[in-house]
Amino acid sequence: MSTDPESNLRTIDEVRFQKLWAGISGRIVEGERITVAVVELEPNGTVPSHQHEHEQMGLVIRGQVTFTVGDETRTFGPGGTWRVPSMTPHGALTGPDGATVVDVFNPTREDWHPAPIDEEVKPRWP
Amino acid sequence: MSTDPESNLRTIDEVRFQKLWAGISGRIVEGERITVAVVELEPNGTVPSHQHEHEQMGLVIRGQVTFTVGDETRTFGPGGTWRVPSMTPHGALTGPDGATVVDVFNPTREDWHPAPIDEEVKPRWP
Repeated sequence: MSTDPESNLRTIDEVRFQKLWAGISGRIVEGERITVAVVELEPNGTVPSHQHEHEQMGLVIRGQVTFTVGDETRTFGPGGTWRVPSMTPHGALTGPDGATVVDVFNPTREDWHPAPIDEEVKPRWP
Repeated sequence: MSTDPESNLRTIDEVRFQKLWAGISGRIVEGERITVAVVELEPNGTVPSHQHEHEQMGLVIRGQVTFTVGDETRTFGPGGTWRVPSMTPHGALTGPDGATVVDVFNPTREDWHPAPIDEEVKPRWP
């Protein structure tokens, strides 16, 4: 937490680790048009199918994710990518080690209201 | 190259590895509003300062990058992040192992015309 939050150059561990949804924690870097989220998904977790106006794209950095976009489903390790067009249902399941993913959105996620994390949860990447 | 390029679920190694600029190769996933690029930077390489209308955000996945945005400069390993507001000069230097970075842009990089890679260059991540 050493650098100015207004800086355009931060290490991800300088960014507050927050609860984004149930079972999903992460760190968010907000741009003017793009939100970048480095998301930690719990082991054997579920992100229920949902949809939003934002276009979402992302990739797996660590662990295993079974991702569904519309009527496509695929299980990925690191390097697996997704594109979620606006208003397209999508969801995910994680493997036994959980996963770290990068998700990016346009427009920014003004609708997100991350909550502080009470419990001792540590990011697993990098 | 086994999956449909129109698929929304692809592994990054199914995406064509291309020359993006001199000394910079990568794989591009195009969305409707966002371009995601997994970029390989050569060892001891330089990305000269440049600017564009697109907002750019990104992070280091592998290796070391010294990134400059406007009047800020910082040397990063994995987890280092940047925000490049529209029309802000930015550039980078890499360390002795080069680097793999994820760069995302809004709007999409319609101005890019990646060229095929003749020589045998292999992505180093994942």
